[in-house]
Amino acid sequence: MPTQLEMAMDTMVRTFHRYTCKEGDRFKLSKGELKMLLQRELTDFLSCQKDPHLVDKIMQDLDANKDNEVDFNEFVVMVAALTVACNDYFVEQLKKKGK
Amino acid sequence: MPTQLEMAMDTMVRTFHRYTCKEGDRFKLSKGELKMLLQRELTDFLSCQKDPHLVDKIMQDLDANKDNEVDFNEFVVMVAALTVACNDYFVEQLKKKGK
Repeated sequence: MPTQLEMAMDTMVRTFHRYTCKEGDRFKLSKGELKMLLQRELTDFLSCQKDPHLVDKIMQDLDANKDNEVDFNEFVVMVAALTVACNDYFVEQLKKKGK
Repeated sequence: MPTQLEMAMDTMVRTFHRYTCKEGDRFKLSKGELKMLLQRELTDFLSCQKDPHLVDKIMQDLDANKDNEVDFNEFVVMVAALTVACNDYFVEQLKKKGK
């Protein structure tokens, strides 16, 4: 039986592939697929962002090899960066509580 | 209601902090804590490894700032690297199936 951490890793793989198969290269996210993934899977994160060019900016930042698509390595870097931000918030709350 | 991807990010944060609080710096993993986390949370990954120095090697690789502890950023890099390996395997299986 997989652990929660193993299931979390599996979720990252499966979420990515649920969106890459919609158009173009089936192992990479196009800009449209990335936008759909962000809107549906990172709803809370996007909902507090007001910048209409946010998806373009994220795509530019992530697309390390400049092929205008996001491969799995680039996607995991994004999830890791967001998780570090979540952790910073979590630690801040813990410290406030003085636990 | 959080999405599966948001819950996966939450799992990474909570798993890390479940082990950091056991000894030493409560926001970083000592070598003992890292070993316990790997054995309990990445069981399948460790079970196929026969190298008795594996935890030492992982600690050396992860501990970018050489303080003999693993902070959250270093931990996320490890999880990301393992997830990329899982994805490579997943893609290989998909290609074999010719889907």
